[in-house]
Amino acid sequence: MDTPSEAGLTGLSAAGRNLLFTDARTASFFAPTPVTDEQLSEIWELAKWPPTQANTQPLRVLYVRTPEGKDRLIKHLAEGNRAKSQSAPVIAVLALDTQFHEHVPQVFPHVPGLRDVFENDLDKRIADGTFSAALQAGYFIIAARAIGLYAGPMAGFDKAGVDAEFFPDGRFKSLVVVNLGHPAENAYRDRLPRLDTTTTVQWA
Amino acid sequence: MDTPSEAGLTGLSAAGRNLLFTDARTASFFAPTPVTDEQLSEIWELAKWPPTQANTQPLRVLYVRTPEGKDRLIKHLAEGNRAKSQSAPVIAVLALDTQFHEHVPQVFPHVPGLRDVFENDLDKRIADGTFSAALQAGYFIIAARAIGLYAGPMAGFDKAGVDAEFFPDGRFKSLVVVNLGHPAENAYRDRLPRLDTTTTVQWA
Repeated sequence: MDTPSEAGLTGLSAAGRNLLFTDARTASFFAPTPVTDEQLSEIWELAKWPPTQANTQPLRVLYVRTPEGKDRLIKHLAEGNRAKSQSAPVIAVLALDTQFHEHVPQVFPHVPGLRDVFENDLDKRIADGTFSAALQAGYFIIAARAIGLYAGPMAGFDKAGVDAEFFPDGRFKSLVVVNLGHPAENAYRDRLPRLDTTTTVQWA
Repeated sequence: MDTPSEAGLTGLSAAGRNLLFTDARTASFFAPTPVTDEQLSEIWELAKWPPTQANTQPLRVLYVRTPEGKDRLIKHLAEGNRAKSQSAPVIAVLALDTQFHEHVPQVFPHVPGLRDVFENDLDKRIADGTFSAALQAGYFIIAARAIGLYAGPMAGFDKAGVDAEFFPDGRFKSLVVVNLGHPAENAYRDRLPRLDTTTTVQWA
């Protein structure tokens, strides 16, 4: 059990590591088991905490779970991804708020000048914001697993089409779409290989 | 306890959620408690599993833990970050492999043509690769917490200087530096606020 005292010494239990990392799988097709709005809120209540650059938290989440919302979204997905998302009870659109710097005085109050640095540099907002938003997308996927859901992230969609459909004022830029739910019997592809540490890890 | 049967129904235990998300803190200063190479390998053995776009896995990790290695790295950090990293037993440099597409035939064998798409488009490799590498950096930070370590990610450093020092052939581009270890008594700043869900979450 992950008691607080144990946690400081050894970290997460083996079962917890399996749930989030080693046994977890990307789901392609989902069972009709419902997902509640409370569960979706619970994901964000976990995912909002880990760090971002200067605490900017630029990721925004659009949870699409009504039939009308799914129709509006799915037509912008790559054809090979539409049946997957149709099967998912919820589809999350993860997007960058390109005006995230407006919140800097609230979220990073000890460096108030940072707002102006971003205000005058859209390229920096896109670059730094996309990096932090992608970190947060990583946290989001692990947080979904932590509350017992399965995630199926997909990059294959018409970003401009999704943005025009759901974010018409141009402020939010969609980054990745994540199907969420419980796995169907045919949920998984064969697991793809991971690179060897001789390729990925160096020491100095 | 996170038994496999429980995990499918309710996800991670409350203690596990606290360890990874809600109680976890970014550490600024570290205790001299050693971190072993085995622990560092263990982080990667977790972090390598969650998904990336087309399974490309473009993140590379350089673990810096010798005095000589730390000296070579710390001189490239922002002055305000040097004492933090000096206190950390290990500093991880997380970098993008801009030639990650060379591994596509191994990691995404059912779409062999994808290698050529990336081969001919460096801008796409940088954009797509940085996004997936940032997802992996998010997984890495949570995985460090999962093995009982504390992470202190920092964006304030001379990226060109770090790359020239450790990756002189120009293939790897550093993205973020992460101090790793156990917290000192003065490890934590006051926790900064998180944005309200009225700002971050929408529904459709």
